[in-house]
Amino acid sequence: MNKDTICALATANGVGALGIIRVSGDDALKVVQKSFPGKNLEKQKSHTIHYGYFMDGEEAIDEVMLSIFLAPKSFTTENSVEIAFHGSPHIGKRILETLTQNGARMAKAGEFTLRAFINGRIDLSQAEAIADVIASENEASRKVAINQLKGGITNEISILRTDLLNFVSLIELELDFAEEDVEFADRSALNGLLDKIELKLDSLIDSFQYGNAIKNGTAVAIIGKPNAGKSTLLNALLKEERAIVSNIAGTTRDTIEEILHIKGHAFRLIDTAGLRDTVDEIEAIGVKKAKEKVENANILVYLADAATEDYSEDIEMIKSLQRDDLKLIICATKIDEVLPPKYEAIEDIFRNEIAQDFDFIRISAVENQNIQDLKNELSSFVEQLKSQENNVVITNQRHFEALRKSLDATHKVKEAISFQISTELLAYELRNALEHLGEISGEVTNDEVLGNIFSKFCIGK
Amino acid sequence: MNKDTICALATANGVGALGIIRVSGDDALKVVQKSFPGKNLEKQKSHTIHYGYFMDGEEAIDEVMLSIFLAPKSFTTENSVEIAFHGSPHIGKRILETLTQNGARMAKAGEFTLRAFINGRIDLSQAEAIADVIASENEASRKVAINQLKGGITNEISILRTDLLNFVSLIELELDFAEEDVEFADRSALNGLLDKIELKLDSLIDSFQYGNAIKNGTAVAIIGKPNAGKSTLLNALLKEERAIVSNIAGTTRDTIEEILHIKGHAFRLIDTAGLRDTVDEIEAIGVKKAKEKVENANILVYLADAATEDYSEDIEMIKSLQRDDLKLIICATKIDEVLPPKYEAIEDIFRNEIAQDFDFIRISAVENQNIQDLKNELSSFVEQLKSQENNVVITNQRHFEALRKSLDATHKVKEAISFQISTELLAYELRNALEHLGEISGEVTNDEVLGNIFSKFCIGK
Repeated sequence: MNKDTICALATANGVGALGIIRVSGDDALKVVQKSFPGKNLEKQKSHTIHYGYFMDGEEAIDEVMLSIFLAPKSFTTENSVEIAFHGSPHIGKRILETLTQNGARMAKAGEFTLRAFINGRIDLSQAEAIADVIASENEASRKVAINQLKGGITNEISILRTDLLNFVSLIELELDFAEEDVEFADRSALNGLLDKIELKLDSLIDSFQYGNAIKNGTAVAIIGKPNAGKSTLLNALLKEERAIVSNIAGTTRDTIEEILHIKGHAFRLIDTAGLRDTVDEIEAIGVKKAKEKVENANILVYLADAATEDYSEDIEMIKSLQRDDLKLIICATKIDEVLPPKYEAIEDIFRNEIAQDFDFIRISAVENQNIQDLKNELSSFVEQLKSQENNVVITNQRHFEALRKSLDATHKVKEAISFQISTELLAYELRNALEHLGEISGEVTNDEVLGNIFSKFCIGK
Repeated sequence: MNKDTICALATANGVGALGIIRVSGDDALKVVQKSFPGKNLEKQKSHTIHYGYFMDGEEAIDEVMLSIFLAPKSFTTENSVEIAFHGSPHIGKRILETLTQNGARMAKAGEFTLRAFINGRIDLSQAEAIADVIASENEASRKVAINQLKGGITNEISILRTDLLNFVSLIELELDFAEEDVEFADRSALNGLLDKIELKLDSLIDSFQYGNAIKNGTAVAIIGKPNAGKSTLLNALLKEERAIVSNIAGTTRDTIEEILHIKGHAFRLIDTAGLRDTVDEIEAIGVKKAKEKVENANILVYLADAATEDYSEDIEMIKSLQRDDLKLIICATKIDEVLPPKYEAIEDIFRNEIAQDFDFIRISAVENQNIQDLKNELSSFVEQLKSQENNVVITNQRHFEALRKSLDATHKVKEAISFQISTELLAYELRNALEHLGEISGEVTNDEVLGNIFSKFCIGK
């Protein structure tokens, strides 16, 4: 393993009171020492902090505090130094330039965490959890990521994997004694273990729908005829949210979606930003566009104007958008403008025409009536995804795929047993299952997989 | 002094590998201890780092590293803890919420530095220097700020102030013995000291023009008739710069000015962003607008199209914009389109008509000819401001004003001596001079001044 010394800015870009530059590698102390003549760094204890000036030759770049972490007691398990400087991006740049002159090189994205993994301090799912913790924007995603960082997923699986490994050893022992036709591995005990593994894998795989909602948010499409009150509803939903968002500086959005947080869960209001000012949406975008919009949604909130008479267009639109895996909420809007019998009649009309089960909510966005009901309805959709039995939630596509492959492999092992297939083939299928189970924690991996994972990290992590 | 415990995010807003929250106050350890059950913080040594989970009750918020600084060996001289967390803004918010539940309160802007000043660890000019270091965007501003942080300005002045204080003591001793008509303070020696003080003050005051150029950049207005080549020139000037700027993430601009860095100095190309695409600028903005644009400029770069014949409009415009304190550079543009005799003739025309001394540069922005000459000319303007005699540069308006008042007061003391005014009045004038000299380091100050200074700091500093 190449342990050349790497450096990078570890704090967010921009001006702050403090910035931190992280240096790691066999020569981390030597590299920093060249710019920190005030103290002999080699003589300092691990986990200690040292005040002084960071120099480029004779020139003082900034007053800094160095934190020293000696191998193996550091994030990477290598000698590491963290340099806290006055948080000017210009000064950060000057310090990094000087460090590279001193013999360090700029770290690649995720390279500190990659080293922590390769040096055996954390497993692969924990490395991924670090990226998830940093990216967490709400309580649900933070909790799941912290649980994963603590080794939640790996623990669940590694116990099963160890048990399976024991069987593999026994089966392979049988191969050594093939001519004697002995069975060291109890087939029914193996079947029992495979049942347990299947149960656990099923439950983890099931949790992915919830995990996905946590990690990526639940996509909500809001559709309605012109003047059905979409803008007003969006404003009512996002009103409080905007105040919160503006308090959390630095939260960035990749898309033009609006993000709504309800009870710690994120809801992505799809493509609304661009359509906020368009009142005649359906005319403007047509059924085709509406379908595109709903295509990736988990929930369709359809707005029907309670103050109108004819709902045939609405019904036609809803029918064209319905999908089995799309939760439907129909909102009668502007109920402040009509009397109760009217919107009760509306509900009947839709119940008669729309075959699918749906929630019906009467709202007045202007008077803020029942907006909370809509929020509860959205929230309960996510809560229902939450598995009751399983504390560990899968949020990662790679883990999901590894679990599915493991489950397939487990099925094949069971088949192999029931068909009393040759011990060689049984051993092969077992090895296959083990390998997929090992993918999650990185016990079995390859450079391409690692490259994919760590390239998505930020620099400095 | 109220030493309640304050907390704030110290790193830049946004997502990073690490974020740092700073906690300071008598109870800093106790406040953090409530969320860090893993270790007894009171028993730890100063300048040590501790790994663990930051808890909100039973819930792990994040895996953190705590840095402990015990009074008086901290930035504020109070007990302090820095909490390094995975740099998600959401997690930062959760930790701050928990700290305030634990008994801390959110720090006001600059409050950590204010405490460092009030607790006597740094003087006021050093406190201001910290803000300047953080805000420094180029080498010149960083160097001056670091020098000030090291106490540069205070050192220069405090020696003189100590000497003056000795004289004040002697003069006040004379007051005690007023009836005996003795002179303890040698008036000619006092005059000699006042001469020295005047010399130093003059030199520091002179440095402010350079200091201002360093801190705020030099304002450059680029004016010319339609098609004189302004856009092309701007692109040529900013071309390299854009590449640099995009490398330094997080540099923000308050105005729509373009910033050009030459040899570590900043030049503000006034109001160019809005005019980049307007070719017929003079028609569009007229002489009045051009004057407004040049009003706050230090340098006027006037572009004259070498490929045209009649320069009367150009000359008229230049004459209307001329000012004693405005450096004039006339550029003959598009010289790739004409032969040397032509642009030599142009120079003669301008030399005959424009009374003021100016630099004449022939450029072809398209072919990138002599753009470097223009850059050198801009750069030399700033270099000439640099005082040869004085290493300390004043960049701060408040210091500038205190120095001017000190100089006035010094003049008055000298007048008082020459007019053989009463000892009482002399003592009064001397006290006045002392007070103004003391303002810079904060030896003499008031809450309003402090409020003004620290409210401009960022939160967390």
